[in-house]
Amino acid sequence: MLGTILMTEAALLLLPVAVAIYYGELNVILPFAVTIGLLTGTAMLMKIKKPSSMSIFARDGYMLVALSWLFLSAFGALPFVISKSIPNFIDAFFETVSGFTTTGSTILAEVAHLPKSILFWRSFTHFIGGMGILVFVIAILPKTDGTAMHIMRAEVPGPTVGKLVSKLRASARILYGIYTGMTLLLTVLLIIGGMPKFDSLLNAFATAGTGGFSILNDGIGGYHSPYAEVVISIFMMLFGLNFNLYYLILIRQGKSALKDEELHWYTGIIAGATLIITIYLTVLHHPFGESLRLSFFQVCSIISTTGFTTADFNVWPVATRIILLILMFVGGCVGSTGGGLKVSRIAVLVKNSVRLVRRAINPRRCDTIKINGRPVDDHTVHGITGYFATYMLVLVVSVFIVSIDGHELTATITSVVTCLANVGPGLGEIGPTGNFSGFSILSKVILSFDMLAGRLELIPIFMLFTKYAIPRKYA
Amino acid sequence: MLGTILMTEAALLLLPVAVAIYYGELNVILPFAVTIGLLTGTAMLMKIKKPSSMSIFARDGYMLVALSWLFLSAFGALPFVISKSIPNFIDAFFETVSGFTTTGSTILAEVAHLPKSILFWRSFTHFIGGMGILVFVIAILPKTDGTAMHIMRAEVPGPTVGKLVSKLRASARILYGIYTGMTLLLTVLLIIGGMPKFDSLLNAFATAGTGGFSILNDGIGGYHSPYAEVVISIFMMLFGLNFNLYYLILIRQGKSALKDEELHWYTGIIAGATLIITIYLTVLHHPFGESLRLSFFQVCSIISTTGFTTADFNVWPVATRIILLILMFVGGCVGSTGGGLKVSRIAVLVKNSVRLVRRAINPRRCDTIKINGRPVDDHTVHGITGYFATYMLVLVVSVFIVSIDGHELTATITSVVTCLANVGPGLGEIGPTGNFSGFSILSKVILSFDMLAGRLELIPIFMLFTKYAIPRKYA
Repeated sequence: MLGTILMTEAALLLLPVAVAIYYGELNVILPFAVTIGLLTGTAMLMKIKKPSSMSIFARDGYMLVALSWLFLSAFGALPFVISKSIPNFIDAFFETVSGFTTTGSTILAEVAHLPKSILFWRSFTHFIGGMGILVFVIAILPKTDGTAMHIMRAEVPGPTVGKLVSKLRASARILYGIYTGMTLLLTVLLIIGGMPKFDSLLNAFATAGTGGFSILNDGIGGYHSPYAEVVISIFMMLFGLNFNLYYLILIRQGKSALKDEELHWYTGIIAGATLIITIYLTVLHHPFGESLRLSFFQVCSIISTTGFTTADFNVWPVATRIILLILMFVGGCVGSTGGGLKVSRIAVLVKNSVRLVRRAINPRRCDTIKINGRPVDDHTVHGITGYFATYMLVLVVSVFIVSIDGHELTATITSVVTCLANVGPGLGEIGPTGNFSGFSILSKVILSFDMLAGRLELIPIFMLFTKYAIPRKYA
Repeated sequence: MLGTILMTEAALLLLPVAVAIYYGELNVILPFAVTIGLLTGTAMLMKIKKPSSMSIFARDGYMLVALSWLFLSAFGALPFVISKSIPNFIDAFFETVSGFTTTGSTILAEVAHLPKSILFWRSFTHFIGGMGILVFVIAILPKTDGTAMHIMRAEVPGPTVGKLVSKLRASARILYGIYTGMTLLLTVLLIIGGMPKFDSLLNAFATAGTGGFSILNDGIGGYHSPYAEVVISIFMMLFGLNFNLYYLILIRQGKSALKDEELHWYTGIIAGATLIITIYLTVLHHPFGESLRLSFFQVCSIISTTGFTTADFNVWPVATRIILLILMFVGGCVGSTGGGLKVSRIAVLVKNSVRLVRRAINPRRCDTIKINGRPVDDHTVHGITGYFATYMLVLVVSVFIVSIDGHELTATITSVVTCLANVGPGLGEIGPTGNFSGFSILSKVILSFDMLAGRLELIPIFMLFTKYAIPRKYA
């Protein structure tokens, strides 16, 4: 199966080759060709040996996902290295992991001078990563009895539950259709607004995957187009939503989609955060309209974990930075391409805390936590509190290792926060105007690990460190 | 009962009066006398009306604790206000809450010039607070079915379980005996080392309660006495231990005390953190011996949540500050005078995360979490993960409110971390050389709330915001 996935990557790499030919970047064709060759060769080798058993356990699924992401990133980094766009392999690996995990953290200070085909591949990884995570969330997580993602399965009606569309392939096809359709719509809207076609497509890739790689040195702000900013804001918000809601709209159940509780939390948080930041920016010096636009863009960008920027929020008031930092933890909705802890987990955590206090006051009280009016069983609730604690544990250990570099405190902590939540920029020297090139090799490896861990909901990545990572015959 | 507690405070206030008379500070006697008068009057008023029922529910216990701490702090602040040592009531209230909750955060930049009786009262609040928290943990928490503190009840043999000493009063008396004995021992050891008697006693108060108010402007470092630093380090560590262990030693079960798992985690964390910080400081410029002493002192001070300082750790390498920040979250052991999340909670959280991953890999696996070799039931584990989430939620909301002040990011966040964990100093402008005077009234109120919430394990303080805070006849 890993072989098939690598073959797919080889096929996808034909697209940047086409771009290279179109723009006459003949010297960049070779790096892509070499990578495609290596991928095909490796895939062949993997496919030679027929597996002794075709049955798949939960842990095999996890392992496959973890290895796929790792291999895709390692091979995907080669074009950057061979074309000397990013000569160092660790840097290129970091950049590619950041692409596939739809994080958008970059080690590049300048991107505008890169060949167009390389820029295309870089942004295209976001689009591929977004597709990958959709199929991961839809296909693999619900198959296991892990505590990772019960909510979606239990709460959100749609393709996942399998009532409406019974086959996995069909579900995936529908989701991919919605995903690709929205990406194309965004591209067209941007082109209408006057953005160059190439830029429109690449920015749409980065928005769809909630990735956030920019192809201008100063981000989306570099287009000086309020229209593009507003359109991208709205689409970042949309890609942070559970895709099952779009499915419901497609099958004309839009009303029940609007009743979704996670949607209410998500839009409520966005509205609240936008309002407060707008007030701060207006008081500071910007006119109201501009404040609202900057604020709405940044809030949508951070909560959807895209990570695009139109302003250097490092110089914004501390309260607004605190809000953005909190939004990094919140993240998008379950079943979206966004990262973070996910809105519905936050909702359950808050409700559980309220219940904890109520129960202490009145021990006989027997509250159940409800999402969408239906009770969430205790097993799920405890899975979520445990997930939160594990998430924080990974955060603390990572910060501890990254702190060896000696970067300032804010950058040290937020580098891990932003990578684990798949956002992109952090605060301090890794803010909108900075990048991750100053970090050591060890830190880049740890941060790559965090991006993967955050993207794959922790569990699969941990498996790489267990004995299951060793093929059975050697174990 | 609240009346009785206020009467006790009035009685305790006679001690600083005695100090004032001894040092001839006649003008400070009046403030204390007025406070004693007000306390007695209020207590009388409270006692006039006989309660209609003498039975106490869990929630009444919580409410009593919350109200006691609040009233004690409000009245305890009066001597500071009336003597004009801290003219502003909110400042004085913050300082007194910081004292009783054994936090040690101060709004005073200079303390050395204050009258001795005022300094005595300030440090004495730590000693009283330490006693209060011992009786709270021993007497009130185990009586309820809340999820707050199951571990101690379930896991640590000793007076709490009631097997060995059946009566609450007897338990409290034994613990107070140990507490007072250790405080006196520390005082004597400090006097032997050449510290003035008055300073020795006050520093012993602050150490016993793991409070950390200093009576010199530049903390314990101001004595320039390596002997005192080492002695205080050791005692900070000791006061951060579960007092039941001392009880076990008293009844000649020292061996089983040494086997306590929380003790191993606690000493392990201290050893590891001390070692790493020592290496950093040695590499930086200090000689090894001095590095070890500075490091050991600061690690013991932070993990026990005392908050004494001998060096400005704001200028230490970022990795060491990260370690200290992590230690603030860890805190002391259950059943100590220390704050924070408590070591055994951290142990359970870590074990639960490991179990979470293991279960995802092998769903049939049925691990139980063990502490001291005995299984911790799932109800307790979920209580702890829920507690952790609630703790972080209070942290986030508080940071959000404090950020309105516009202090720099590090100070904004660590002010809440240090107050919630009852440590004392933070990083940035509230570091070892700074203080909390720059915060707004709103922030001081919020931080006072955090100190109380952290000290009383969240639940009782939340009760003040529920309908149970209104006497039944008005409800």
